[in-house]
Amino acid sequence: MERLNIGLIGWGTVGCGVIEILNSNSEILRKRLGVELYLKRVADIDLEKPRPVDVPMDILTVDANQILEDPDIDIVVELIGGTEPAKTFIRKALERGKHVVTANKALLAVHGNELFDFARKNQRIIAYEASVAGGIPFIKALREGLAANNIDTILGILNGTANFILTRMTETGVSFKDALKEAQERGYAEADPTLDIEGIDTAHKLAIAAAIAFNMPVSFDAVYKEGITNIDPLDIEFGREFGFQLKLLAIARKTSKGIELRVHPTFVPCDHVLAGVRGAYNAVYVHGDAVGNVMFYGLGAGMMPTGSAVVSDIIDLARDITHGASVRIPPLGSYEVEEAELKPIDELETSYYFRFSAVDQPGVLSKISGILGKYNISISAVIQKGRHVGGAVPIVMITHEAVEKAVRKALDEIDRLDVVRAKTQLVRIENLSGNGI
Amino acid sequence: MERLNIGLIGWGTVGCGVIEILNSNSEILRKRLGVELYLKRVADIDLEKPRPVDVPMDILTVDANQILEDPDIDIVVELIGGTEPAKTFIRKALERGKHVVTANKALLAVHGNELFDFARKNQRIIAYEASVAGGIPFIKALREGLAANNIDTILGILNGTANFILTRMTETGVSFKDALKEAQERGYAEADPTLDIEGIDTAHKLAIAAAIAFNMPVSFDAVYKEGITNIDPLDIEFGREFGFQLKLLAIARKTSKGIELRVHPTFVPCDHVLAGVRGAYNAVYVHGDAVGNVMFYGLGAGMMPTGSAVVSDIIDLARDITHGASVRIPPLGSYEVEEAELKPIDELETSYYFRFSAVDQPGVLSKISGILGKYNISISAVIQKGRHVGGAVPIVMITHEAVEKAVRKALDEIDRLDVVRAKTQLVRIENLSGNGI
Repeated sequence: MERLNIGLIGWGTVGCGVIEILNSNSEILRKRLGVELYLKRVADIDLEKPRPVDVPMDILTVDANQILEDPDIDIVVELIGGTEPAKTFIRKALERGKHVVTANKALLAVHGNELFDFARKNQRIIAYEASVAGGIPFIKALREGLAANNIDTILGILNGTANFILTRMTETGVSFKDALKEAQERGYAEADPTLDIEGIDTAHKLAIAAAIAFNMPVSFDAVYKEGITNIDPLDIEFGREFGFQLKLLAIARKTSKGIELRVHPTFVPCDHVLAGVRGAYNAVYVHGDAVGNVMFYGLGAGMMPTGSAVVSDIIDLARDITHGASVRIPPLGSYEVEEAELKPIDELETSYYFRFSAVDQPGVLSKISGILGKYNISISAVIQKGRHVGGAVPIVMITHEAVEKAVRKALDEIDRLDVVRAKTQLVRIENLSGNGI
Repeated sequence: MERLNIGLIGWGTVGCGVIEILNSNSEILRKRLGVELYLKRVADIDLEKPRPVDVPMDILTVDANQILEDPDIDIVVELIGGTEPAKTFIRKALERGKHVVTANKALLAVHGNELFDFARKNQRIIAYEASVAGGIPFIKALREGLAANNIDTILGILNGTANFILTRMTETGVSFKDALKEAQERGYAEADPTLDIEGIDTAHKLAIAAAIAFNMPVSFDAVYKEGITNIDPLDIEFGREFGFQLKLLAIARKTSKGIELRVHPTFVPCDHVLAGVRGAYNAVYVHGDAVGNVMFYGLGAGMMPTGSAVVSDIIDLARDITHGASVRIPPLGSYEVEEAELKPIDELETSYYFRFSAVDQPGVLSKISGILGKYNISISAVIQKGRHVGGAVPIVMITHEAVEKAVRKALDEIDRLDVVRAKTQLVRIENLSGNGI
């Protein structure tokens, strides 16, 4: 039986998952492929640290070049993460005629256009299913399964750490800090959780997904990013009174005024399927002109789920290689990737949740609503409760659609009122419908 | 620019969707494919009836052979449904070197093995994304995106009509009959709804999905089928008191005692993502050894969603053809499809919901539970309410895991008791966990 040689760079968590799958499912993979997937070499700078999966001594190396320069290796799997030396390794592999599989969203979000271009020139494939939504075969769905569609919306819960934290805050009422601590204790969050809780990792993934959906270059810098560190359990509770659940949402939307790319805490209706995505799970909700609404749900991280996505890319490559298909699909799913007009966050039109912290005296509501009215922001619902928080009472409002720029100005003005005691909390709302009835 | 010629047989609802997509998204498809998809001919026995999408007169024909015998046609799309002449058309197309796209689950569920074998012999592809879960790219997910996995479980809500009916019964308390009537009025159910409400359509789809997941032949006859016609709103209500939601579930599960293939009304926990699948939506929940739990959600029927799936198959074929990939993936995703040991429904072990209709007198509960005990069926919860229904009171029980055969015997014996006034209602329970926390 024919065999394909795989070189794996990066014997970390995901690397162990890949090795485990290639070992334990080798028979089923052989039946599905008609060829053998053979792990020829594994490179890592540290061969000593304890790992959950063993590798035969004689295929281990500390030198990635032993993989990159081996003419027998067909597929290079890059799982070291970060920009360098990952980028150099990938370029070198492509240059030497190897196909590449990577899970490196941070690299692709920033250098994807360059790398995809380089792959195209070398007529080789960079496969990156594992870079977005972990084990969920979402890149495949977008580039292939939904390719008949003009896609106009992607809404994603793309970071399991952030979703775990928000779920705990929602279900137990704990503070952000305590929920983060729990996530760290359970191994869902890293010691430095910045990428996860500031929305950066989510933005990496959104930039990649949006590029495919909208036939545009990967545009990470254009993504508006706002994390979950300022979320108070109080806001989650008030949101629920209005029928909303809080999620860190990645939003890519094609509008008549340009493409929106944004990551921020977002209220979604409690009866929407996205609201039911709990804990470390990820989900991506897509609207296409033909298919309507579809959603993909699963684990977005972890040794085995991410390993599943990496191996599915290897399987795709094996099917391409053994059938002489060369580069069957362009990296972003289109032969004509075109710059798109982007809509800055200032021009966003959406509805908003505001929580004002005001002193409890007559006329305050009138002052606040007066300023909102001046900026054309119309209110659809108000809750004012007697509860005092730090010498002030929360006044919570839901608006009709308003323009972000006007909202910012109005809040600036409101926050300068002497009856207002703290910065106003703002959460954007996605008034999603279309959930089945 | 190169062009691929498509012949469409069946100018019905889905056919119109396909034509609409090829028309309105032609530019985006050209960018994604680098070739033009050209609808060369459309055949239907009735060219007169009004349709939502027009076709130029000169490409219309009443004679499918004008497509099947046209040497310029690369891809034949079969959308007439039913067994014959669909089967003959597909064989003829394959024989003449054309690839085939079909949405015909009834045909594939019963004659899939023969047709796939015939396609293999002719080195041509039968693509059938649209046959399972409509617009959701689920076949692709299973054969490709999750191909790294040893899959052990598929749980599907695969019929939008049945799910719409159950959702209405759950949310408004109406009877099955009234909910069916509403579904018919809204166009979700056909005048003869048998295939949908008796679980047959769901079983067609399950047989296809299970064959891919478990590397086995399509085994429609082996699927246990039970529809939703006997469901009483009372059962939905009692289920909710135990924290369950009722769904018509397609279940395929690999167990140590063989493979379970069954379609029946099933209680799932209210906080599980499957419980949130409302109305005409479909969803498929899969467990794989590497990926863990994943779910795919979307519209399982309709002109445009099903059209989306058909066109995604055409896109796949176009990518194969233009890159000389021939048959890149075997029909069921494996080169070694092997007969599997099937587990008959009698040997099923699961927990059950029973609703007994008993006279309201002392000792009844003891008689019933005595018989259950005799058959080794252990009770985990009971509700007995004063409410009289037709001269009897409902006694509702949830069991621990029990064997179906024993359950049947016990219920037979119980239903013969003179204190029992009607046939006992039985609903199987899926005690799903793993939903995020």
